[in-house]
Amino acid sequence: MFDNKDSSKTPIASLGEFGLIDHLTKHFTISHSTTVKGIGDDAAVIAPKEGVEMVVTTDMLVEGVHFDLGYMPLKHLGYKAVMVNLSDVYAMNATAKQITVSVAISNRFPVEAMEELYSGIQTAASLYKVDVVGGDTTSSTSGLIISITAIGEATPDKITYRDGAKENDLLVVTGDLGAAYLGLQVLEREKQVYKVNPNSQPDLENYTYLIERQLKPEARKDVAAMLAELEVQPTSMIDISDGLSSEVIHICKNSKVGCNVYEDKIPLDPQVIATCEEFNMDSTTIALSGGEDYELLFTIRTEDFPKIKANPNFSVIGHMTKESEGMHLITRANTKIPLISRGWNALEEED
Amino acid sequence: MFDNKDSSKTPIASLGEFGLIDHLTKHFTISHSTTVKGIGDDAAVIAPKEGVEMVVTTDMLVEGVHFDLGYMPLKHLGYKAVMVNLSDVYAMNATAKQITVSVAISNRFPVEAMEELYSGIQTAASLYKVDVVGGDTTSSTSGLIISITAIGEATPDKITYRDGAKENDLLVVTGDLGAAYLGLQVLEREKQVYKVNPNSQPDLENYTYLIERQLKPEARKDVAAMLAELEVQPTSMIDISDGLSSEVIHICKNSKVGCNVYEDKIPLDPQVIATCEEFNMDSTTIALSGGEDYELLFTIRTEDFPKIKANPNFSVIGHMTKESEGMHLITRANTKIPLISRGWNALEEED
Repeated sequence: MFDNKDSSKTPIASLGEFGLIDHLTKHFTISHSTTVKGIGDDAAVIAPKEGVEMVVTTDMLVEGVHFDLGYMPLKHLGYKAVMVNLSDVYAMNATAKQITVSVAISNRFPVEAMEELYSGIQTAASLYKVDVVGGDTTSSTSGLIISITAIGEATPDKITYRDGAKENDLLVVTGDLGAAYLGLQVLEREKQVYKVNPNSQPDLENYTYLIERQLKPEARKDVAAMLAELEVQPTSMIDISDGLSSEVIHICKNSKVGCNVYEDKIPLDPQVIATCEEFNMDSTTIALSGGEDYELLFTIRTEDFPKIKANPNFSVIGHMTKESEGMHLITRANTKIPLISRGWNALEEED
Repeated sequence: MFDNKDSSKTPIASLGEFGLIDHLTKHFTISHSTTVKGIGDDAAVIAPKEGVEMVVTTDMLVEGVHFDLGYMPLKHLGYKAVMVNLSDVYAMNATAKQITVSVAISNRFPVEAMEELYSGIQTAASLYKVDVVGGDTTSSTSGLIISITAIGEATPDKITYRDGAKENDLLVVTGDLGAAYLGLQVLEREKQVYKVNPNSQPDLENYTYLIERQLKPEARKDVAAMLAELEVQPTSMIDISDGLSSEVIHICKNSKVGCNVYEDKIPLDPQVIATCEEFNMDSTTIALSGGEDYELLFTIRTEDFPKIKANPNFSVIGHMTKESEGMHLITRANTKIPLISRGWNALEEED
C-alpha cells in the first residue's frame, strides 16, 4: 500500500528533514495567545502567565538510525537521550525543569535491559536536576525507540531565539567541536575489527575524550548561568547538534544576516587534531559537519566582548555581516569560501 | 546481545505495562517545587507560577501494536493520535492548549503519505483548538511511530486527580462504552474477508457508529466546560483508554476506596448490543474490557447528583464504598462479583 514504487510519489529524502518539517507544518496556525513561539526554534515558548515563559522541546531517538546497541550501552543511551533534549532547552537560554520519557521496546529486551536504560535516564535527571514527570512504555515490533519531551523555564527577558543576531555581532561557540563524530568513527572501526577477530583487545587510550563525547555527551547547563553572571544577554542562540555550519546557517537565515567564520578560530581538542591526522580527515570539515557536539552557538553584541574574552569556555569564531554579503568561511590561507551545510547524513554517505 | 535466552533474565511481559512503569520509575524523585504531580495520573501537573497549573501528558502509537495501516487511513491515524493525548488532558479537568508531534517513518512512505498523516493532525488541532508547537521527524528502520505530548492549563481548584474519590461518591461515565473495540472486530473481520476475496464489497452500514468510534474517536473536550457550568467539581477523574474496569480500579486504588458498579447502568449504544449478539459476545465484558472509548470516568459528591441526573451526557453507574468492601460488579441477576481488570491485551489473546 505504501511501497514507494509509484513514480508520481515524492520520496521523503528529496526534501530532507528540515524541508519535510517545513512542508508538513507550513499550514499550521497558532490560535492561543499563550503560544509565544511555535515550530522553528530549538524549543517552543509558552507563556501561561505574565512574567514566566516555559520552553518545550521534543526529540526522538531510533535504533539503527541514531544509535547502534552494538557499541552504545543502554545506560549511556538513556543518559544521551536526556542530554539531546536538555541541550535544546539550554539553547533557549532557559533552565530545564521536567522531562517525559516514552519508550517503545521489543520483547527481545528483558526487564534488566530496561533497568539499564532507565538508570541512565535517572542519572542524567539527577545530575541535571530535572524531574521525570511522565511517560509511556509500549511494545515495538522491531527496534528500540525513545522519545523525550523536555520542559524548561525562563523569564521573558532571558529567552534567546535564533532570529536575534544583528550585523557586527560576534559569533561565539562553547567548548570544542568535532570530537563526538570522531568518537563514532573510532567505535565503528573497532566494531569492524571485532567482527573479523572477536579476540582482539581494543586499545582506545588515545581516543578516550572522543569516545566519551560520543557515548556520554553533556549538555551545557552551565552556560545560561555563566552568561547571566557575566551580564551578557546573547542576541541569538542555538545548540550544535547537526554540525557547526548547519547551525550557523540557521542563525543567519533566521536573523537575516550574513557571517564570516574564521577557520583558525574553531576550537578543536588535541585528540581531534591527532585522530584527524591518523584517519586522514580534515579537522575543519569534521568540526563544521560532524554534529552531536551539543555545544552552544550564540551571538553577542561587540560591546560585550570584554566580558567573555578571557573566558576559557567561550571561543569567538567570527562575526555577523549584512545579509547581502552571504555566509563565508575564512580559511587559514585567508581564502573566503561559501559556508555550506552538509550535515551529518551527507558526511555519512561519503564514508 | 539482548536475545532473551538467559533464564535469569526477567521477561517484560511478566510485569505488564503498568507494572513495568512502576518498576522502572519507583526510584525517581521530584526535586522542583513547581512539579506538583509527577508520574501516576493521566498527566503530570506543573505550577510555574501561583494561580496557574499546566498539565503535560505523552503517548506513543506504534505500527503493528496500536494500529494497522491495512484499515487505518493515515489521516485518521493522525487525528486519533491527537485525540489519545487530548483525552488525558481532559481527564485532568483541564483545557488542552499545545501539542508537540514526533514521527519516525521508513522510506517506504512517500511525502504524500506524510501529508495525509499531518492533515489529520492539523484537522484535530484545529477542531480542538490546540497549537502544534514543535516536533521531530526522523527515519525509522521499519514501521511508523507517532509520539505526541499534549500541554493543557487549568486553575488549581479545577484540576482533578485519580485519588480524590471518597466513600459514597457517585461513579459517573460520559457517553457510551464498548463501541471502539467492536469497531476493531468488524474491521478485522472485513480484512480477513478481503484476503480471501479481494472483490468482495463490504457492507458496513450496520456498523457505522462502531467503525467511527474506532477510526475517528473524539476526546471529551466538552466535559470540563459542562461540569463547570453545572457547578460540579468532580472528586476524581480518569479517561477510559484501557476499558472501564481497569479505570475504575485505578480510581479505587489511588483513592483508597472500594466500589459497586451496576451492570444494568453501563451505557451501551444499540449498535453495540446488536453487534455483540451477532458476534456472540457479552456486551458487559466488551464495555468493561474493550478499551479505546476515550470517554471520561469521574466521581462526584452525592449532593451534586441532582445537577447531573437529567443530563444525557452522563450515566451514574455506581458508587464508592469503604476500601475494605472491595471492588464489585452487581450483575443484572443481582449477583455481586469481583471487578477484575483484564484490559485490552488480555482480551485480544482470547480471540
